[in-house]
Amino acid sequence: MKSFIQIPFDSHFPIQNLPFGIFSTQQNPTPRVGVAIGDQILDLTAITTLFEEHVPELKDPSNVFSQSSLNSFMSLGKPLWQATRRFLQNILSNGNPELRDNDQLRQKSFVAQQAAKMHLPAQIGDYTDFYASKEHATNVGVMFRGKDNALMPNWLVFIDSFYIGRYINLKKKRSRVHLPVGYHGRSSSIVVSGTDIVRPCGQRLPVKDQPPIFGPSVKLDFELEMAFFVGSGNKPGERIPIDQASQHIFGLVLMNDWSAWEYVPLGPFLGKNFGTTISPWVVMLDALEPFLTNGPTQDPTPLSYLEHNVPSAYDIQLEVKMKPNESDSFKTLTRSNLKYMYWSLKQQLVHHTVNGCNMRPGDLCGTGTISGRTEDSRGSLLEITWNGQNEIEFENGIKRKFIEDGDEIILTGYCKGEGYLIGFGECTGKILPALQ
Amino acid sequence: MKSFIQIPFDSHFPIQNLPFGIFSTQQNPTPRVGVAIGDQILDLTAITTLFEEHVPELKDPSNVFSQSSLNSFMSLGKPLWQATRRFLQNILSNGNPELRDNDQLRQKSFVAQQAAKMHLPAQIGDYTDFYASKEHATNVGVMFRGKDNALMPNWLVFIDSFYIGRYINLKKKRSRVHLPVGYHGRSSSIVVSGTDIVRPCGQRLPVKDQPPIFGPSVKLDFELEMAFFVGSGNKPGERIPIDQASQHIFGLVLMNDWSAWEYVPLGPFLGKNFGTTISPWVVMLDALEPFLTNGPTQDPTPLSYLEHNVPSAYDIQLEVKMKPNESDSFKTLTRSNLKYMYWSLKQQLVHHTVNGCNMRPGDLCGTGTISGRTEDSRGSLLEITWNGQNEIEFENGIKRKFIEDGDEIILTGYCKGEGYLIGFGECTGKILPALQ
Repeated sequence: MKSFIQIPFDSHFPIQNLPFGIFSTQQNPTPRVGVAIGDQILDLTAITTLFEEHVPELKDPSNVFSQSSLNSFMSLGKPLWQATRRFLQNILSNGNPELRDNDQLRQKSFVAQQAAKMHLPAQIGDYTDFYASKEHATNVGVMFRGKDNALMPNWLVFIDSFYIGRYINLKKKRSRVHLPVGYHGRSSSIVVSGTDIVRPCGQRLPVKDQPPIFGPSVKLDFELEMAFFVGSGNKPGERIPIDQASQHIFGLVLMNDWSAWEYVPLGPFLGKNFGTTISPWVVMLDALEPFLTNGPTQDPTPLSYLEHNVPSAYDIQLEVKMKPNESDSFKTLTRSNLKYMYWSLKQQLVHHTVNGCNMRPGDLCGTGTISGRTEDSRGSLLEITWNGQNEIEFENGIKRKFIEDGDEIILTGYCKGEGYLIGFGECTGKILPALQ
Repeated sequence: MKSFIQIPFDSHFPIQNLPFGIFSTQQNPTPRVGVAIGDQILDLTAITTLFEEHVPELKDPSNVFSQSSLNSFMSLGKPLWQATRRFLQNILSNGNPELRDNDQLRQKSFVAQQAAKMHLPAQIGDYTDFYASKEHATNVGVMFRGKDNALMPNWLVFIDSFYIGRYINLKKKRSRVHLPVGYHGRSSSIVVSGTDIVRPCGQRLPVKDQPPIFGPSVKLDFELEMAFFVGSGNKPGERIPIDQASQHIFGLVLMNDWSAWEYVPLGPFLGKNFGTTISPWVVMLDALEPFLTNGPTQDPTPLSYLEHNVPSAYDIQLEVKMKPNESDSFKTLTRSNLKYMYWSLKQQLVHHTVNGCNMRPGDLCGTGTISGRTEDSRGSLLEITWNGQNEIEFENGIKRKFIEDGDEIILTGYCKGEGYLIGFGECTGKILPALQ
């Protein structure tokens, strides 16, 4: 499959990908729906007459694609997402002259990504974060049980309960994993890649048994995650069966779940909800299908509502890079892979609705930090520096234990196909100093 | 202050109250903004010309009041909420002939509450629940430390961390309370009073060290709470100072935070997010001002960002009634009061934004279960039956430990003024059987 648009071999956005996003331009500052192709954006509001002709089942495309979020398009359901994708691959293909040879239409249909401003892809009604990586949970659990740890005993209690359900008998060294643990996050502070994040303030307990003090977080971290958008939901009181789960998932983005590790007493609440960054392009499940693979063996076998006997993990290579404020270049901190996750995306969604909790189009579910088994695949500075015990060295003697003001973090990721990549672009963010 | 509308002495909605809500009727099924007065609703879309004349600073009232949520009105800010309230009190007062003597306008402006369907008052972007009652936290903490408790050890761990920050040294019998603990809840499953709730299913661990089983919750409970709507928010990275907090709070509702007490391993996540019920009428802070009183003494003194030296608690009497499925009448289960809360609403809001977390108009913050010091003021069945140890007796020998299918719960509450009540109406819900 080739497009008439020139696609460099290392582009994240070949014709096999076609992720959806919301963009605007200086000439037309109204946010609207576009699809990434190479270094261009195909403006779907510019080709609505083509939609009317070729995808008649998609009613009122000018309305759906002129929205400032993907929620309307998502709520149409998977058959229409797929019809749209098939049409776009067709109209962009090398062999189809309809758009290729129509200079006037091409002129108004394509926008250089460099000239566009990206927006949040959806209005996120509810945001949930899971803890689906066993390795991350194990790292954090072991870390705060190590004899050298200088943290207060509350940490222990907190971490125990944070991973409860998965680590019910951790103290007996038995890791019984029966369900994907999740918690609700804050949707108001989810921002699109490139948005600066202000260092949060809060209460800290630097000295045990002394009163807390107020000030900026001193253990600010990234967390390497991915997240899926729910495309079509379920009614209150109903549940999504495992064999229909992929019908409800629209697509995936990269996510940096910024964290202030003063959880106690700042709490997981204020330690997380000051900002969460996602990448702007939503890669549809259909584009990722060639990269389905088996996830880790699940032992014990999950209860039947969580059981699937088909490959349900995705082989997505992930990387995190960091640029200290006083440096000019990025250094790779870690390389991981979504396939390491113990629980699949389908299992996360099914478990979320097993009690009748209703999902809506545009709801976002994060995977939790994606850490692998090796030291160079740890998904957070907390794990990489082992809670600040080890420093990371950058060029010119620059060192870091956690994130300092002005530091920048980039998450990136892709699947490697035969001669092409299915990429997610970048998820970037810079930390600004705390407010006085 | 008297209205030309007849108000029975025990009405929750005299002219001193004027709560806002979203309603529709059979004749006009479009949800729109109304204000409760006696047993009537004043339809604000019917008197927009009066608004244009008397409240010119309120731009485009026909647009604001024809919305299906209060978010637009909320986002106008407190000076306009107050101007609107002053105008409504004026136009409804006995001495003002403008609406009183205009039969035609009166005809189309008032709708009997009995004939109206109430909707959620706002589109709730984010929902946060706090644990602001020290008594509730103490009850739950003591309960799961009692020698007779048959629960698994994980409960202990969970409860410890649930209240962490407030009960840092619970084991040392020192209750250092430095901040209001909160967690994010699910906004998709918040429903308006009168909506049935389906009993949730999930994993349970009835026998320790055995695999979990799947099935309906057997410890389903109500929780007596109130909640405030944020009216105007703050920008990401900024915080709301304590002396401006009440400028940002629009008003209060009753809230039943339905809970399945199989927290472990069902989790606080799935044990809460299957349904939360709020009352339809939002009582504005201005209507509650005469009932400001001092809350409990705060010792230790909170850090300065949380400190206020003015009365900031509200004297709101609360009551919960229950009707078992096989009974015809409601029995009062508990009587409590919002003024028992350790942390004020202002402190909850300020703490929420201290890390720069941004609030938006329509965000909802629950207080947590409101329990008093006495046994007859406990705010949940968990506390009333002491985790099922004691049964509640109803007429004809009917007994309950937790909520069974078909049972109904009503929350109600009011402030008692000189010759009038400022009431919240009712917050009702019935439990339907779990799905097969």
